[in-house]
Amino acid sequence: MSPPYCISLADVKKAHSDIEDLIHVTPILTSSILNQLAGRKLFFKCELFQKTGSFKIRGALNAVRSLTSNTSGDGKKPKAVVTHSSGNHGQALSYAARLEGIPAYIAVPRTAPSCKKSAIRGYGATIVDCEPSDESRTAVAAAVVKQTEGTMVHPNQSPAVMAGHGTIALEILKQVPMMDALVVPIGGGGLISGIAITVKALRSEVKVYAAEPCKADDCFQSKLKGELTPNPSPPVTIADGLKSSIGPNTWPIIRDLVDKVFTVTEDEIKHATQLVWERMKLLIEPSAAVGVAAVLSEPFQKEVPATQDVCVVLSGGNVDLTSLRWLKQPECEEAQHPLK
Amino acid sequence: MSPPYCISLADVKKAHSDIEDLIHVTPILTSSILNQLAGRKLFFKCELFQKTGSFKIRGALNAVRSLTSNTSGDGKKPKAVVTHSSGNHGQALSYAARLEGIPAYIAVPRTAPSCKKSAIRGYGATIVDCEPSDESRTAVAAAVVKQTEGTMVHPNQSPAVMAGHGTIALEILKQVPMMDALVVPIGGGGLISGIAITVKALRSEVKVYAAEPCKADDCFQSKLKGELTPNPSPPVTIADGLKSSIGPNTWPIIRDLVDKVFTVTEDEIKHATQLVWERMKLLIEPSAAVGVAAVLSEPFQKEVPATQDVCVVLSGGNVDLTSLRWLKQPECEEAQHPLK
Repeated sequence: MSPPYCISLADVKKAHSDIEDLIHVTPILTSSILNQLAGRKLFFKCELFQKTGSFKIRGALNAVRSLTSNTSGDGKKPKAVVTHSSGNHGQALSYAARLEGIPAYIAVPRTAPSCKKSAIRGYGATIVDCEPSDESRTAVAAAVVKQTEGTMVHPNQSPAVMAGHGTIALEILKQVPMMDALVVPIGGGGLISGIAITVKALRSEVKVYAAEPCKADDCFQSKLKGELTPNPSPPVTIADGLKSSIGPNTWPIIRDLVDKVFTVTEDEIKHATQLVWERMKLLIEPSAAVGVAAVLSEPFQKEVPATQDVCVVLSGGNVDLTSLRWLKQPECEEAQHPLK
Repeated sequence: MSPPYCISLADVKKAHSDIEDLIHVTPILTSSILNQLAGRKLFFKCELFQKTGSFKIRGALNAVRSLTSNTSGDGKKPKAVVTHSSGNHGQALSYAARLEGIPAYIAVPRTAPSCKKSAIRGYGATIVDCEPSDESRTAVAAAVVKQTEGTMVHPNQSPAVMAGHGTIALEILKQVPMMDALVVPIGGGGLISGIAITVKALRSEVKVYAAEPCKADDCFQSKLKGELTPNPSPPVTIADGLKSSIGPNTWPIIRDLVDKVFTVTEDEIKHATQLVWERMKLLIEPSAAVGVAAVLSEPFQKEVPATQDVCVVLSGGNVDLTSLRWLKQPECEEAQHPLK
């Protein structure tokens, strides 16, 4: 777009042609019940159906492929890719690296649940233990970069990651051409930055709204103060994919191109998660429900005209199913359904 | 089709034109991971996205509309519709009756979970308490029919219900024209009867397979013995929608037109449920997982050539979410994810 931003529409379009052989064009689903509750037409972009269960593969694959094509003509692949994320980005980078035949090292806190570690190992990456603190994660990842001569792929501040995520917007603009606004969950801001760059370049009248947990509201605070204001302490929210603060690369785009930030409470997030599970039968993760919670919130109803058609990005579906009791204890469920 | 059957392709086609204004043409989804596991191409017909959360609305709406159009020219609507099912049929009939402005009475065992009762009441039907036994359910429903001068709509032996369910096959034949076989969960057999009548009339070379819990294997036993053999005692299975036995109207169709019955264990059903939740992010109910379990089972792999493209009907997604612990106790989940 314009000079201050680290990515442009051209980057997003290039990312799209570079990754479209692998990623799914995920469907848009609708729900008459959700429409009723929201008092408007909603269009849900189902990135929970994306490879690796979230949109993160778009950016991770674009980053890995950018590295591969950037090897100054000698045909050599990068020696490794490294990141610190036990969540969706860690899984996506592992998957993308394996596809391209590059080793991946993921710094994972030793306290992380074993199911997360298994998923990363399942994609063939190497787990490097660290302590559960930002300092340790960053330090361990940096040490691994040095040791392996690898390349750090930041979950949300990497321009290649941001451009990869922007490919979602290219799909949505085709799938929901009449859309008036988009609602996007925000953590580090990689997703909404890619989307905002794309949407504002192609359809500047379409509003781009961020949806953020009250308990991790650094984006809201940053917009309020007009300067990058990270979360003062590690956020505690059920939307575990949105705990990252926005950063130096995503902030200028968010500052200029995101029309508004809507914050939602933990109860609103839980309610929205359950609503989408019950009514839409989509197993979204709580982070993906934050956009749904936003469109159902009173401020949204007040500030966004009911005539507007709104697209909500359901960003992922990686829920830890070990917490779902009935799969383990069916006799308990059985007792509740004596007759059917 | 032929004289011994209570429905024909013409009935299914009429049902389709009678109900298509309301029902969703549910999507077909695919999964590369499930394809890998099954060693073949699978096409999932997503009836969990259907109105009321299961295919049951197709038959219920067709039954209610048949009654409305059958009122011997006097324009009178039926006085009431009655059934005994606290499950998907009860909800679907309640919904269909409200749409057509007819009172619905549902005999529900007093021990049924309150969430089921709430769903039925939510659709505007009247709940009539009965005891948790087949005898009590039938007797109470019969008494309500007499008292209200209403009409009983049987969950699976009503021809109008069977024809309505068959409309799924009309959609699938268009959506997956290259399909070689269909796998359908079986309880009372209303769904597979409608499907078999349709598929065998239009594409006789397409195989129709039933998928049944081992613990409710009356269809398997009936085919083995060549005569209708109901479950000897109330089945105990996590696939709570498949506890009904097949009956006099569905049996002849199943006997003649269903190519084979595959039975699956409770563990296979639970595994398939979790697989679809984890890998496809679709919140199916265990009954809907029975078809998935069947295509993954060893007998299926052995007996059905791997070259065949198979469509699996995901029949519904009405899971009791009160059994999902983390929505109630997020702090417990939180503790498992200290870092993301």
